Amino acid sequence: MLNIGIDLGGTNIVAAVVDENYNILGKSKTPTATPRSADEIFDDIAKVCREAMENANVKIEDISSIGMGTPGTVNGEGVIEFANNLGFDNVPARQMIIDRLGELPVFIENDANCAALGEAYAGCGNGSKNFVAVTLGTGVGSGIIVDGKIVTGVNFAGGECGHMVIMVDGEPCTCGRKGCWEAYASATALIRQTKAAMDADPDSVMHELAAEEGKVSGRTAFDAMRKGDISGINVVNNYIKYVACGLINLVNALQPEIICVGGGICNEGETLMKPLRRYVQAERYSIHSKLQTKIMKAQLGNDAGVIGAALLGSTK
Amino acid sequence: MLNIGIDLGGTNIVAAVVDENYNILGKSKTPTATPRSADEIFDDIAKVCREAMENANVKIEDISSIGMGTPGTVNGEGVIEFANNLGFDNVPARQMIIDRLGELPVFIENDANCAALGEAYAGCGNGSKNFVAVTLGTGVGSGIIVDGKIVTGVNFAGGECGHMVIMVDGEPCTCGRKGCWEAYASATALIRQTKAAMDADPDSVMHELAAEEGKVSGRTAFDAMRKGDISGINVVNNYIKYVACGLINLVNALQPEIICVGGGICNEGETLMKPLRRYVQAERYSIHSKLQTKIMKAQLGNDAGVIGAALLGSTK
Repeated sequence: MLNIGIDLGGTNIVAAVVDENYNILGKSKTPTATPRSADEIFDDIAKVCREAMENANVKIEDISSIGMGTPGTVNGEGVIEFANNLGFDNVPARQMIIDRLGELPVFIENDANCAALGEAYAGCGNGSKNFVAVTLGTGVGSGIIVDGKIVTGVNFAGGECGHMVIMVDGEPCTCGRKGCWEAYASATALIRQTKAAMDADPDSVMHELAAEEGKVSGRTAFDAMRKGDISGINVVNNYIKYVACGLINLVNALQPEIICVGGGICNEGETLMKPLRRYVQAERYSIHSKLQTKIMKAQLGNDAGVIGAALLGSTK
Repeated sequence: MLNIGIDLGGTNIVAAVVDENYNILGKSKTPTATPRSADEIFDDIAKVCREAMENANVKIEDISSIGMGTPGTVNGEGVIEFANNLGFDNVPARQMIIDRLGELPVFIENDANCAALGEAYAGCGNGSKNFVAVTLGTGVGSGIIVDGKIVTGVNFAGGECGHMVIMVDGEPCTCGRKGCWEAYASATALIRQTKAAMDADPDSVMHELAAEEGKVSGRTAFDAMRKGDISGINVVNNYIKYVACGLINLVNALQPEIICVGGGICNEGETLMKPLRRYVQAERYSIHSKLQTKIMKAQLGNDAGVIGAALLGSTK
């Protein structure tokens, strides 16, 4: 059984033909090139789908379903109700794909939810049915899987765990609240925390590191820490504590089998994952339970989105 | 179809015969009288079940299943792995009920989860399948229902939303973390906040109110607010803001149809519910969605526990 998964991003549109063992048989990609009309963008979506099928050497008749992950909120009718960074307002995505590729089952879902589904089934979850994926990127994205299905909530806007407040009256968040997890645990937040520490410590090695790289990045404080820089150590310690705080919140609320952590910061590997696991182990409510939530690093990288999107048809 | 629901509490054991329309046909109650051996407590559980059947004028042959809510963590085999306030450590609750009442289907679940199930099906949820119940009591209890089922998690310890941190490094919580929602939004926390405000304001009317009642209670600040007392107003405003913070966190993560708020503090009615709804409306992530989570007052009071327990057999 073959399915097409589409990852509609703010930067690129990716499509892939995915088989029943989650292998990608063919793939194609084109820039999203916003701002453009929805019609133009969906013409390109159809184009990359056709190219992916060509690359996989299959025909549309071989395809069982098409799934697409998109930023923003998608309702049960496959309409993208709102997607800020695509400029979409009530775009009938499902119908626009059917109009271009034919009468196939088409499923549309939020992109973070698709990535969670991909990691749960085909990535570090290895088929896990109770799973949370967290992505530490520009923001903190997340998707919740319960009983093998995405928790979309009543309005298909569920899974926004980055917008859970961990610090009442704390740092302002892009969502309008103050103190969201995202405002402390995203790569953006880490960079802000790094800059603040640099301002406070003119002797920190972080100044040299940032000059070498040409900017302050999510790596600056980690690299400084590895050089024994006190300000770098403090930034990293605090950042990991903030990330852990939200993870423990999710453990206590949902006790999933696995919480998967992804995004650029995860390139730090065990430097990040090991202390995260120690915080979770020390603070989780379920100290007396034999089974415990595993904290794992995401495995699929950018492919999580297309693989998860391709899975939408079989997990609805 | 008749089921028996049991609510095993730290203070009382209650059993009820519940019909398919969630009506209680007969009920009985006895003190838990801890500390006692599990055997003695389960003898009394069987006794109140028999009394409830007598009061309902039904026989054990008329009963389809027995469900019990208990404090603590219950595993999939119906063993209470740990329940601090009952002194239980690996008590085989399911088997102990079968030994005393016969070979019926018996289901054991955490008490907050049972109460959530009761409110979802028979209370303010009116059959809602995606539902969160929050109880503002000594602690902040909660239960999460997704697709009509309790989210127990991998280790049956799920739904502990009171132990999600809303204030990093904040007030110490009984669970060992700092800044849990429970440490700000429980009745216990409200009393602590009231006492602190009284210490800071010797002229507050709260001193008189507490003297009249013989103690500082969850009502003291609300009563002072109604008399225009500035310190009382501040305590209530801050408390409601803390309660709302956790509710909005749950909305953003799960977007349930309904979040139900129960516990003694809810006797304040719309004085509490109205500002809570305004906070949620202003801060929820899903501002563009047509459907929104409803914030409702719990309806079943103490009966939520036995009704939810009686429902366990049909929702597993």
